[in-house]
Amino acid sequence: MSIGVFDSGIGGLTVLRELARTFEHESFLYLGDTARLPYGSKSPLTIRKYAEQNLKFLISKNVKALVIACNSASAQVPEKTFQGLPVFNVIRPGAAHALKATHTKRIGVIATRATVQSGAYEQALLALDPTVKVFSQPAPLLVPLAEEGWVDDPVTNLITFRYLQPLLKENIDTLILACTHYPILKSSIQKVAGAHVQLVDSGTAVCEELACAFASGEVAPQTTGGQRQLHLYCTDTASSFRNLATRLLSEYQLECSQFLMADLTEIG
Amino acid sequence: MSIGVFDSGIGGLTVLRELARTFEHESFLYLGDTARLPYGSKSPLTIRKYAEQNLKFLISKNVKALVIACNSASAQVPEKTFQGLPVFNVIRPGAAHALKATHTKRIGVIATRATVQSGAYEQALLALDPTVKVFSQPAPLLVPLAEEGWVDDPVTNLITFRYLQPLLKENIDTLILACTHYPILKSSIQKVAGAHVQLVDSGTAVCEELACAFASGEVAPQTTGGQRQLHLYCTDTASSFRNLATRLLSEYQLECSQFLMADLTEIG
Repeated sequence: MSIGVFDSGIGGLTVLRELARTFEHESFLYLGDTARLPYGSKSPLTIRKYAEQNLKFLISKNVKALVIACNSASAQVPEKTFQGLPVFNVIRPGAAHALKATHTKRIGVIATRATVQSGAYEQALLALDPTVKVFSQPAPLLVPLAEEGWVDDPVTNLITFRYLQPLLKENIDTLILACTHYPILKSSIQKVAGAHVQLVDSGTAVCEELACAFASGEVAPQTTGGQRQLHLYCTDTASSFRNLATRLLSEYQLECSQFLMADLTEIG
Repeated sequence: MSIGVFDSGIGGLTVLRELARTFEHESFLYLGDTARLPYGSKSPLTIRKYAEQNLKFLISKNVKALVIACNSASAQVPEKTFQGLPVFNVIRPGAAHALKATHTKRIGVIATRATVQSGAYEQALLALDPTVKVFSQPAPLLVPLAEEGWVDDPVTNLITFRYLQPLLKENIDTLILACTHYPILKSSIQKVAGAHVQLVDSGTAVCEELACAFASGEVAPQTTGGQRQLHLYCTDTASSFRNLATRLLSEYQLECSQFLMADLTEIG
């Protein structure tokens, strides 16, 4: 049985890459809701509705666990189980990871407007450590910049600088990349933030959480050594999804992966 | 009876503003599909499906004519009527307007990736004048920049410069703003293009076409002098829609306008 992963589109592929790298015997089924992306500019109610449809789609494909590889959606799905299956969202792991990384307890968060407005990271961080200081900044233009592939580009550096200025003034020592698109721009973000700021991304964080779930038996690990499967579904046929997936996942024997269309109109 | 107008979100409000300014006795019913925006990065099939649902929604509200205030959707709806009602898309009027403006017959088009890939403007321009030279450039980042309100901003100028360079090298004298978001950034675009380049926007162009339809009797004009209505529907509750609508339409007695939710799941 596969692990089901969904995102609004292509950003979650950065999480899938980390999962595929870390759990090398596991099979994955990924859903990118490319027909309705992005989620980060939409309302909590709409994001919740889309997230539920995506989870039901993954469950209909007979998965053993659910990973929400999208921060905007994670902020609207706090549950630890959905229809009896364990759900791993990226927020609690990201918060825990940031608290392990920080020395000064001054943590920055960059995210979509929807994630910032939800206050989900602040709540998760303060629940784990009430003495931490959290500084949040919406950085919506980084999503289309990542999708355009303007990586290591002067324009991206300039926009990143504008977004990070208010956080750097607060002397953060740790920065949560609270949108799964942002790791695509990691080199620009690290350059602007400076080497002393530790970046936390959702992929690494959720892998740690999933490793615990395997260790505790909450999720059964794949033990047989057969060829694993990587199935990639999307709700639209846009070629940019296939291009980025092929680039990001090139090391994972994409010959065993399949690109498929998902029809969410069949989902309740 | 109102004129029905739809767009993927907020860009079409620039067209609605021109329509409301030009036809001062007409009532308008606007639908912004904010739950699924943007369209410009999606596939022809998905855009066509969304456009049909939007048209059916407007027809269910008993309108007398349909305006597609979105270039990406216009490129997928070439029909002149839909379910018996006249349809005005923005492409043919934009092409006709550009041909009237050009002296050198060298015309540039900036648009979303979906509109550029459709080839709709090239076809419309060449059908009207086979001797014209058309140079097209996708400019996807201008949409989120307009939505962020980074108007007259150095970052916007820099990105606009990068997009326009290949067109300016071709010595265009006319530039079609083939996405209804772009008029929001008109001052940056004019500055980068230079004063000798004439900008053509969809709103002005479609108003000329609609004026002809009123004159010919294809659409019956509003003759009584009663208070006109402006009804604004959107498919999501995001506040950015209301903010931009209030700003762009401030001169049109918004006290007579209403903000309403549209449920497209009821539409076939």
